[in-house]
Amino acid sequence: MRTSIATVCLSGTLSEKLRAAADAGFDGVEVFEPDLVASPESPEEVAALAARLGLTLDLYQPFRDAEGVSEEEFALVLRRARAKFRLMQRLGTDTMLVCSNVATATVDDDEVSADQLRRLGDEAAAHGVRLAYEALAWGRYVDDYRRAWRIVELADHPAVGVCLDSFHILSRGHDPAAIEQIPGAKVFFLQLADAPALTMDVLSWSRHHRLFPGEGAFDLAAFLGHVLRTGYDGPLSLEVFNDVFRQTDVRRTARQARRSLTWLEDVAGTHPLPEVAEPTGFDFVEVRAEDTGDVDVLLGQLGFTFRGRHRSKDARLWTEGPARVVCNEQHARDRSPTLAAVGFEVTSPPTSAARATALRAPTVYRRTLADEQELPAFAAPDGTEVFLGASSAVVDASWVPEFAGGHEPGAALLTGIDHVNLAQPWQSFDEAVLFYSSVLGLRADAGQEVPAPNGLVRSQVLRSAAGSCRIALNVAPLVWESAAGFPQHVAFRTDDVVAVARRAVARGLEPLGIGRNYYDDLVARFGLPDDEIETMAELGLLYDRDASGDFTHFYTATIGGVFFEVVQRRGGYDGYGAPNAGVRLAAQHRAQHRT
Amino acid sequence: MRTSIATVCLSGTLSEKLRAAADAGFDGVEVFEPDLVASPESPEEVAALAARLGLTLDLYQPFRDAEGVSEEEFALVLRRARAKFRLMQRLGTDTMLVCSNVATATVDDDEVSADQLRRLGDEAAAHGVRLAYEALAWGRYVDDYRRAWRIVELADHPAVGVCLDSFHILSRGHDPAAIEQIPGAKVFFLQLADAPALTMDVLSWSRHHRLFPGEGAFDLAAFLGHVLRTGYDGPLSLEVFNDVFRQTDVRRTARQARRSLTWLEDVAGTHPLPEVAEPTGFDFVEVRAEDTGDVDVLLGQLGFTFRGRHRSKDARLWTEGPARVVCNEQHARDRSPTLAAVGFEVTSPPTSAARATALRAPTVYRRTLADEQELPAFAAPDGTEVFLGASSAVVDASWVPEFAGGHEPGAALLTGIDHVNLAQPWQSFDEAVLFYSSVLGLRADAGQEVPAPNGLVRSQVLRSAAGSCRIALNVAPLVWESAAGFPQHVAFRTDDVVAVARRAVARGLEPLGIGRNYYDDLVARFGLPDDEIETMAELGLLYDRDASGDFTHFYTATIGGVFFEVVQRRGGYDGYGAPNAGVRLAAQHRAQHRT
Repeated sequence: MRTSIATVCLSGTLSEKLRAAADAGFDGVEVFEPDLVASPESPEEVAALAARLGLTLDLYQPFRDAEGVSEEEFALVLRRARAKFRLMQRLGTDTMLVCSNVATATVDDDEVSADQLRRLGDEAAAHGVRLAYEALAWGRYVDDYRRAWRIVELADHPAVGVCLDSFHILSRGHDPAAIEQIPGAKVFFLQLADAPALTMDVLSWSRHHRLFPGEGAFDLAAFLGHVLRTGYDGPLSLEVFNDVFRQTDVRRTARQARRSLTWLEDVAGTHPLPEVAEPTGFDFVEVRAEDTGDVDVLLGQLGFTFRGRHRSKDARLWTEGPARVVCNEQHARDRSPTLAAVGFEVTSPPTSAARATALRAPTVYRRTLADEQELPAFAAPDGTEVFLGASSAVVDASWVPEFAGGHEPGAALLTGIDHVNLAQPWQSFDEAVLFYSSVLGLRADAGQEVPAPNGLVRSQVLRSAAGSCRIALNVAPLVWESAAGFPQHVAFRTDDVVAVARRAVARGLEPLGIGRNYYDDLVARFGLPDDEIETMAELGLLYDRDASGDFTHFYTATIGGVFFEVVQRRGGYDGYGAPNAGVRLAAQHRAQHRT
Repeated sequence: MRTSIATVCLSGTLSEKLRAAADAGFDGVEVFEPDLVASPESPEEVAALAARLGLTLDLYQPFRDAEGVSEEEFALVLRRARAKFRLMQRLGTDTMLVCSNVATATVDDDEVSADQLRRLGDEAAAHGVRLAYEALAWGRYVDDYRRAWRIVELADHPAVGVCLDSFHILSRGHDPAAIEQIPGAKVFFLQLADAPALTMDVLSWSRHHRLFPGEGAFDLAAFLGHVLRTGYDGPLSLEVFNDVFRQTDVRRTARQARRSLTWLEDVAGTHPLPEVAEPTGFDFVEVRAEDTGDVDVLLGQLGFTFRGRHRSKDARLWTEGPARVVCNEQHARDRSPTLAAVGFEVTSPPTSAARATALRAPTVYRRTLADEQELPAFAAPDGTEVFLGASSAVVDASWVPEFAGGHEPGAALLTGIDHVNLAQPWQSFDEAVLFYSSVLGLRADAGQEVPAPNGLVRSQVLRSAAGSCRIALNVAPLVWESAAGFPQHVAFRTDDVVAVARRAVARGLEPLGIGRNYYDDLVARFGLPDDEIETMAELGLLYDRDASGDFTHFYTATIGGVFFEVVQRRGGYDGYGAPNAGVRLAAQHRAQHRT
């Protein structure tokens, strides 16, 4: 279907927005009036630029406070409308969004509103314009799309139809099924926005927190289904007011927006993407630094075996069972350790890669020499390189033999990578959620916030349904921006965390220091036996329990921007020890500031 | 009265929080359990540190999910409580906050809750502890302080009383008058928090948006009055969960918190400050830069007269009628022009200065030589220097003769400074609201947001009731942090903006460029006559109108971080042309980026 985006979704000047929309592959835009009013370009220049860029100007918006008014007020509405109709002729735009009245409505009468829309329709038609009437969720009298449609039916004018906006309908909890009662020819326009599940006044929710499809909690596939069953064949158009997207790079936001419609057309079935199963696990993680020596030491203490150097790259492989960590010193001058790449195990790497390409994920190219496996790779929004490897029935992945000169692995205590924790800039958090869910098929859990000594960390897990693949995206408090950066980490899974910790300590590991008060609190909360508590205190273990099971884990020190965790899940425990996050963050804060 | 603060209000480690609270002048703290659990210091060490700092540990909090539970569950509650009572003995804290049950309550019966609190009270008393039971606004069954008091009455135990929290009571709109029915001896603790008027779920509102008294919308003076009339004589204690304060410098936030209680004791009448009338206007503004030459040129174009150099400082004075601008090149190496100081006219500078000192506003010292007027000055949270000058009946302020060697002013077109617009870092916005309202007696208007091409600008006006003194505080979008900084400006008032603009243009001023689309929109919205529109377009004037009057204004170019505006108000127009802010910000964006 044709795609469009309201200029208000994007940052910058009107001409910057048009160029970004075209670059991202949109077919058209909605012209947001304040963008045009603030623009130095004449309407004719805007029309010419759009034409050169191959963009249609699909909608002029918004026209406010048109109906339900006194006759005296309506005379002013007509004067204002005529000026805007002439402007639209100059722009070459034939559809105007008319919002239900918020500010000036004094007459709560469908007949009156219909009569005024009809007369406005006469005037519009005389200028070659048609009116798409939309119920705002906070309209004074008209705040429900069903009532807007009733008024349009009453108006019974060829130039008067409805505009449907997913936010205004779904935010109010209105059943979208009745959309199907509207003839498609009378649906003049369709605006799409997602939103997080928030409990707040709908105006603030709308103005600050809308998201692109796939980034929020609305069931937009079902919504779109209702609209398409009317026969609607106009554009899928995005209208997203979002405090972050208003600030972020316009080209990047436009690409993110376009991806969201590709995702929506897939889940709605109008333009399916290559179908992929959820990832079955992690193929590897890669730490990159000019010198990864300290990470090598840490991995050795955690029980990893050095498997050798890569045959053509300055990289070393460490494994412990199916947990694989690559230490890469290539192209890493002056770089302290960070998580640079995450490899996912997928059923069919070529299919997953085709899907990622269809979603316009940026391809990552790495040199691959003869006899080396070529893993498709894409850049996540924060720059993390996402590799797609084949799920393997054996312990070693097929690319492992490219590393040589190391040792044979022995029996392993680790059973794999449990989760990977990636720090995200606040600018790209929502984009990252869409990336991992649309490209890899991971699902977003409910987000949460954990307290660090200097602010709340926003945390969002994306995971496979089976739980074998989990990523946590963390947005650090703003003050961290100027600090050394927020560390990332890899959590390894084991069935015997005490044994792993003992082995590590025996090899010289100093686990992250946890104070005695924490263990006193564990006793108060869970009544754990003294010997278990003493073991935990000795090894720096943390503990959590819920109705389904329990969870024991420990953390290493942080090296550069990376640390490791080892976790043991028992029973059906499915969380990440969130109640311990504050204790862990405080300990890391002390270690960082040596207090 | 004694003052206290919950450690959760502040950033950092527990010991950092204690030191900051003591430095800021608090008498005690509430120990927030997660802060202690995450701390490496033993309870004894914490107690000893507090004692050395002269702080009492007034409350241990929170103890959750204690009552309204099954007997089986209550046995676990008792075990948990005993551990915490022993911990409190080690801390030397005798009051525990018991929150109404959120998670585990299954019995909605006051008798059961009272019985369980009574038995918990027995256990507490045996440890020398008393329990302050608080109704959380989102408690499962008990979410109203009146019900919490009923349960405490039923429990009828000397170790069981209530904790009153302004947020939990006022956020739900519960009438605080019934507080007076509780005997003061049964009010075991009082927690104070302000909050902005938001419409959202009360848990998110509480966890993220609480403010210190005087920074929000609650009537805390009336609230405190009800509490004090019970005979309560415990501490005034702050409990503020706020996403920003969790991040900001702990010492600074503690001082802000302490100031909020000084303000509250003033408005509640328990400890009045020196009383001051609202400012009558602006004495001067000061632009500081290594080279203010371009600002001198701009002021000359706007009609200002050069009045001379200061006798002992590297500063020049420009005036136009009662509008005075000082260009200061002292201590300004490498600094491009910014608004460095604002002088306010007050009825009695010494009284205002005494009030500022009582509110612990940081004093600013400037060299003052013989025969030079000494104006008291204080640093606002963003570093702007706030001077307190005497209101003057004559055009020139009494310090003007310190400048010599300039020209005599002629007839003036400007009638004064209308408002001053100060950019604020997001970290100190709420603190600045408290500063200007508590120190100067300005009042906060409703805030608003205006769209810039790269994000929303949050704007908050503080003004005198009479309107002769207005400051707008602007928080720029986060992306501006890394940019050149958000410019500040001074708006001058006139009764003939066209004449000022014509004179300025004749002297070479290029007003900020406004495009033709803006004027077409003005015609559509207001039906202004052609000749007025042409004059506006020629001179770069902007226009707004509301029911009470209208407003015409123009902007100069930006020099460094400063620009100027000239405004004419007609009728009762009391705003700032906010509908034009987007157009202005877009024009500034173009000028900055030369697009």
